Amino acid sequence: MSVETVAIALVHHPVVNKIGEVIGSAVTNLDLHDIARVARTYGVDKYYITTPYEDQQKLVREILDHWQTGHGSTYNPARKEALSIVDIQESLNNVINELEELHGSRPLLIATSAKVSEKTISYSDLQTRIDDNKPILLLFGTAHGLAPEVMNKVDYVLPPIEGGTDYNHLPVRAAAAIIIDRLLGQKR
Amino acid sequence: MSVETVAIALVHHPVVNKIGEVIGSAVTNLDLHDIARVARTYGVDKYYITTPYEDQQKLVREILDHWQTGHGSTYNPARKEALSIVDIQESLNNVINELEELHGSRPLLIATSAKVSEKTISYSDLQTRIDDNKPILLLFGTAHGLAPEVMNKVDYVLPPIEGGTDYNHLPVRAAAAIIIDRLLGQKR
Repeated sequence: MSVETVAIALVHHPVVNKIGEVIGSAVTNLDLHDIARVARTYGVDKYYITTPYEDQQKLVREILDHWQTGHGSTYNPARKEALSIVDIQESLNNVINELEELHGSRPLLIATSAKVSEKTISYSDLQTRIDDNKPILLLFGTAHGLAPEVMNKVDYVLPPIEGGTDYNHLPVRAAAAIIIDRLLGQKR
Repeated sequence: MSVETVAIALVHHPVVNKIGEVIGSAVTNLDLHDIARVARTYGVDKYYITTPYEDQQKLVREILDHWQTGHGSTYNPARKEALSIVDIQESLNNVINELEELHGSRPLLIATSAKVSEKTISYSDLQTRIDDNKPILLLFGTAHGLAPEVMNKVDYVLPPIEGGTDYNHLPVRAAAAIIIDRLLGQKR
């Protein structure tokens, strides 16, 4: 199985807040590190951070520079390697265009959500698409999740992570780790 | 399936550093939050933070207090609920004694490790023990992993997480999320 066609994006805008309003969220340092390390472990090709805010893009660039070429790169080469798959984009459309250019076809847009969707795709069905080398873009939402305009645009939605309790407040870092493992970890 | 007999411990001493020396590590704020939220989602009964250092115990207590009874408890009740399963203990032995008292028998000690062990237990075998209501204590190591004296003491070790690449530097937060999902997430 090749996963060179699998990319992920952590979306910081448009997402929703606690009461469902569409907002832009701030970038969290550990979202960069933790998700990059998981993605690199499972062979994910690209990890996009999308934010339209220039100060946030600058922050991400500074973090990446520290670990790519600054002190961090010699202090912790493993971190450098993980962060080498991270890219900044101002919008999801830019990510889609870049991937379309790279692979020659538009990636399948897959959302992850804590809610059940009518566009659900099972993990095994999505694994089949990955085996067929279909380019895939997995979307993770920060704050309280992807905004409706993103959910309307995606091709499919993965089922929510069920832990068997009524508690459903996973950090996006944990959700990303679990989803990437379920999708890419079992079968190789 | 009941998971009321499953507890986890995040060990800060004795663990090893990059070059294999036995050390004590500092508590990371996000390890508390992220792992508590995952554990609570999957119905894990108790999440122990073990550290022999009083200043570190105090730090953990302050964080817990903020979210349990301070401003955080009204600002974010879901966080309060997740952190309600967290306990501080100065040593692994104390955790084992507390669980033995609670359940009437010594818990099965299960280590998680990035290395293959002779004491490997499969996920499905461990799930059978959980189904049988055997008390289980899952150990996660901070820094570069659990020290040899802990590894020697455990009953079993779960297989390393394989992502299909030669890169193996998962954050403990991600490893805990993936392992708890593999163990408790699929079958319910």
